[in-house]
Amino acid sequence: MRAVFLAAKTVYVRQVDTPVRPPSYALIQMRVAGICNTDLELQRGYYGFSGIPGHEFVGTVVEADSPSLLGRRVVGEINLACGHCEFCSVALGRHCETRTVLGIVKHPGAFAEYLTLPEANLLVVPDHLPDEEAVFVEPLAAACEILEQVALSRGSEVAVLGDGKLGLLICQVLLAHGLRVTVYGRHADKLRIAQKAGALVGTSANGARFPIVVDCSGSADGLRQAVNLVRPRGTVIMKSTIHKPVSIDMAKVIVNEITLLGSRCGRFEPALALLGAGKVDVRDMISAVFPLAEAPAGFAEAARSGVLKVLLRSSS
Amino acid sequence: MRAVFLAAKTVYVRQVDTPVRPPSYALIQMRVAGICNTDLELQRGYYGFSGIPGHEFVGTVVEADSPSLLGRRVVGEINLACGHCEFCSVALGRHCETRTVLGIVKHPGAFAEYLTLPEANLLVVPDHLPDEEAVFVEPLAAACEILEQVALSRGSEVAVLGDGKLGLLICQVLLAHGLRVTVYGRHADKLRIAQKAGALVGTSANGARFPIVVDCSGSADGLRQAVNLVRPRGTVIMKSTIHKPVSIDMAKVIVNEITLLGSRCGRFEPALALLGAGKVDVRDMISAVFPLAEAPAGFAEAARSGVLKVLLRSSS
Repeated sequence: MRAVFLAAKTVYVRQVDTPVRPPSYALIQMRVAGICNTDLELQRGYYGFSGIPGHEFVGTVVEADSPSLLGRRVVGEINLACGHCEFCSVALGRHCETRTVLGIVKHPGAFAEYLTLPEANLLVVPDHLPDEEAVFVEPLAAACEILEQVALSRGSEVAVLGDGKLGLLICQVLLAHGLRVTVYGRHADKLRIAQKAGALVGTSANGARFPIVVDCSGSADGLRQAVNLVRPRGTVIMKSTIHKPVSIDMAKVIVNEITLLGSRCGRFEPALALLGAGKVDVRDMISAVFPLAEAPAGFAEAARSGVLKVLLRSSS
Repeated sequence: MRAVFLAAKTVYVRQVDTPVRPPSYALIQMRVAGICNTDLELQRGYYGFSGIPGHEFVGTVVEADSPSLLGRRVVGEINLACGHCEFCSVALGRHCETRTVLGIVKHPGAFAEYLTLPEANLLVVPDHLPDEEAVFVEPLAAACEILEQVALSRGSEVAVLGDGKLGLLICQVLLAHGLRVTVYGRHADKLRIAQKAGALVGTSANGARFPIVVDCSGSADGLRQAVNLVRPRGTVIMKSTIHKPVSIDMAKVIVNEITLLGSRCGRFEPALALLGAGKVDVRDMISAVFPLAEAPAGFAEAARSGVLKVLLRSSS
């Protein structure tokens, strides 16, 4: 089969053997996959990754133990967990310490004509939801994770720092949850998407302070700004991974009893429900669609400033 | 009256006017006061403090509007709040943005023969509780603050990093709350106090991991160690203020969805109740008692490595 391969900071397309599904796994024919910032970080050499990347996908099940899955369009939870450790036993397989992760840690990813995943990881996509929207379930689940970690009451004020893909998804999830959201960013066209969804927008906080601040800035400066933006006893939710040590004024965090909360990926069900019900609109966030064979150009486009989601479509 | 004065990093004793209480304030004759790490930090020049320090005290009310307070032994909440802002209206006067703070921010402190505080700040000390123990209410309230911020179930495992005064108080509060506590520290005599209270103790964690870690190390290295000691989805409670920016591996905090929680001072009631009921034993933590007139020697002793609480006693 055709697959995208990443090694030594280079993305290329090559022929590899089609994967063989183990028992209780499905073989999935990829339809559409999304390039995520994590994929760009893998390309930049973080995590020493080499192999087939890709963890945002929608595909068709072509082989499976469960007849009910055959031929169905699915999305798939990306963590392959052991199923019996202390985290797995409380439905937190995404923290299982021996997990592999689709396209990130020791499990070949979705930027290929075929991939495998445990059947237990799969969710069937409603017929009315197009591939190009269903492929947003994985990043949207990461956005929804906030609601699992923090009790947010309807009407509360939240600031979102950063108008990138994750910031815009989080903005919409919080609006759908009844919060009053202000998005701070630097790109007029991206802020327009937040505004269309119902958020207030701005380029600078000008001394405003919020009980909840979500940092999606992707930068150490942004995180420090989030700490300055939050009220005493407030919470900064840290969504965008920063790969260098970050220097923080912890005296301020301690005196003001601020909570800094790390937040990563989340459950797929609430994300698929939001997309299925049309409560999150991702259509304006699709910047480009490339054929799988042109993945290197897709990666280059995704890395350009101002670009939102770049999708890869498999033609097979 | 005689008062301790701190200016230009120097502690001395001098005569000053006895303060005059405003309406609804009490005039309090100091009996015993405690030297806290914050006082040593004031001496080192943090906060640009100049004036009478001291915020841990027990004293006798000599003038007040309320006859029921006259002649009573009291301790006093150190934050003088406005009473009507968003924080004051939810009983969080300790976060009031226009507050003054006894012996720290614009209100003369307790290292003097007399001090004033709003009557609303005062709690009467039970007769059976000696001055030298009641004076621990303020730091013990800071220890109890953890229980207000985090839901801790009986039997949970907690690591306390640091065997100083605050670490030992927190250890005892958590034990009284039914938690299983391990204290990591470097001083055999201090760790013995934790052990006597019922904690496990150690000098190094050796790869152990905890769902809750309380950092009382007072150092940036200690805080980084706390982040390494906590399990995915766990909480690091940051109790000791660090006055330099701290460099943290936020990627780890985010990927493992760790919570970093700043925690400062707390309500006096639960602390006084624990002391009154004998559930926290502070007697082994008193390293020395100096007369108020010898406060400079008391400060020097309190700053010596290995020394726990140094008290000042007013002879008047």
